Amino acid sequence: MKAPQPILESRAVRLRIRRGELTGHTSGLAAGHVQGNVVILPQALAADFLRFCQLNPKPCPVLAVGAPGDPALPALGEDIDMRADVPRYRVFRGGELVEEPADIRHLWREDLVSFVLGCSFSFEWALLEDGLTIHHMAQGKNVPMYRTSIATAPAGPFHGPLVVSMRAFRPADAIRAIQITSRFPGVHGAPVHIGMPERIGIRDLGRPDWGDAVDVRADELPLFWACGVTPQAVIAAAKPEFCITHAPGSMLVTDLRNSQLAVF
Amino acid sequence: MKAPQPILESRAVRLRIRRGELTGHTSGLAAGHVQGNVVILPQALAADFLRFCQLNPKPCPVLAVGAPGDPALPALGEDIDMRADVPRYRVFRGGELVEEPADIRHLWREDLVSFVLGCSFSFEWALLEDGLTIHHMAQGKNVPMYRTSIATAPAGPFHGPLVVSMRAFRPADAIRAIQITSRFPGVHGAPVHIGMPERIGIRDLGRPDWGDAVDVRADELPLFWACGVTPQAVIAAAKPEFCITHAPGSMLVTDLRNSQLAVF
Repeated sequence: MKAPQPILESRAVRLRIRRGELTGHTSGLAAGHVQGNVVILPQALAADFLRFCQLNPKPCPVLAVGAPGDPALPALGEDIDMRADVPRYRVFRGGELVEEPADIRHLWREDLVSFVLGCSFSFEWALLEDGLTIHHMAQGKNVPMYRTSIATAPAGPFHGPLVVSMRAFRPADAIRAIQITSRFPGVHGAPVHIGMPERIGIRDLGRPDWGDAVDVRADELPLFWACGVTPQAVIAAAKPEFCITHAPGSMLVTDLRNSQLAVF
Repeated sequence: MKAPQPILESRAVRLRIRRGELTGHTSGLAAGHVQGNVVILPQALAADFLRFCQLNPKPCPVLAVGAPGDPALPALGEDIDMRADVPRYRVFRGGELVEEPADIRHLWREDLVSFVLGCSFSFEWALLEDGLTIHHMAQGKNVPMYRTSIATAPAGPFHGPLVVSMRAFRPADAIRAIQITSRFPGVHGAPVHIGMPERIGIRDLGRPDWGDAVDVRADELPLFWACGVTPQAVIAAAKPEFCITHAPGSMLVTDLRNSQLAVF
């Protein structure tokens, strides 16, 4: 009997997803590997969306863009098939959610362009590797996310407020968290705000717009990072004729390692 | 007539100081060049002090240490003479200030060891170069400094609380200031605290232990950096038999450029 060919853990996860064996959340899968937010748009809208990302790199850090009609993204994994490698997709028509399939081969078109955007899982990995505690993870909750009073820079039909995620730390750890996430501009980078939520239009930390409320203790400061929900909210508001995204928490698992995204 | 030999601006400043033409503050002289805090101790104490610096690199970042009896520090400038190149010295005997000479050739001994420690002028230069406003500088004041409840790690006779300097910024600028100063570990590096002065034993920002009070506005956060006054206070408390330091504000001007201290 021949030994099986060794493959990357990330590729093994993708194969299981492609075969329909994994259709849920990807959190914790292929530990240490970069996971990405997925947006698939018709070519006519893709140019405006790419410009939107270029104008707003903190909420929309582009890891890869596919060629029109091409479901491959070799920069993130040689075998990637964007039609089958996301556990669960969301299909929108005219802004309405119409389907949540585990495979989009039946919907693929020659004019579709795939985007993969960096996600906070990568910098959370770096924070945890450094020994910091992330409360929402320790409590088994989703990160709290808030609509802010900060406007994104618009491009074509895409415009709307910046959405941020919040993680609280004691002051010395907050400084360390700023240092660590500054090394990862490709996955939201440094926080956009610290300490004064009301100054960015957040009235009540206890009532996030997405995710779960997480207490901020008296000896902690809330830190706010640009969030990948920003482009999702902006696309939803633009009501494009046709659009496919990943379902929340069901990301594309790539062959890149989180550490490879560090710029120093 | 021959044209004068061009020399470094920093070296020209040192020559003027050496000739006794400059005996005051060095702030603003040889712009862009590193200035250093000076401590000169007998060899018997120097070993403990170097260990103290090694244990407390944030308040005591060592830029150079001389050989016993040798007033040269070629790492900071080929011609440096530690007996004459500081505009104003302070001489302590048994912890008492006994003299403030502009030259210490008459006091030099074969067992004296010179230390030059990094100073916040260098990271303030980097903050200003980035376009940030530093209030105490804009207001022509000294930076406010505070004794904290954070203990330094002791070594031999040297022990005491960490002293910090405070600069206030709006949240986004505070994040930027953390990023910028993180690049300069040789001159105190990143802040040690942000936002909650009472958590580090500072009861009233309006009453600094050294320097001038500077208002913190309602939309600003106070940031606290480890300060070079820490080793001065620690040495004063240890009451060494003999010790020479620079007089406040009268630093050693070196040939290093501030930008050369950036680690990335």
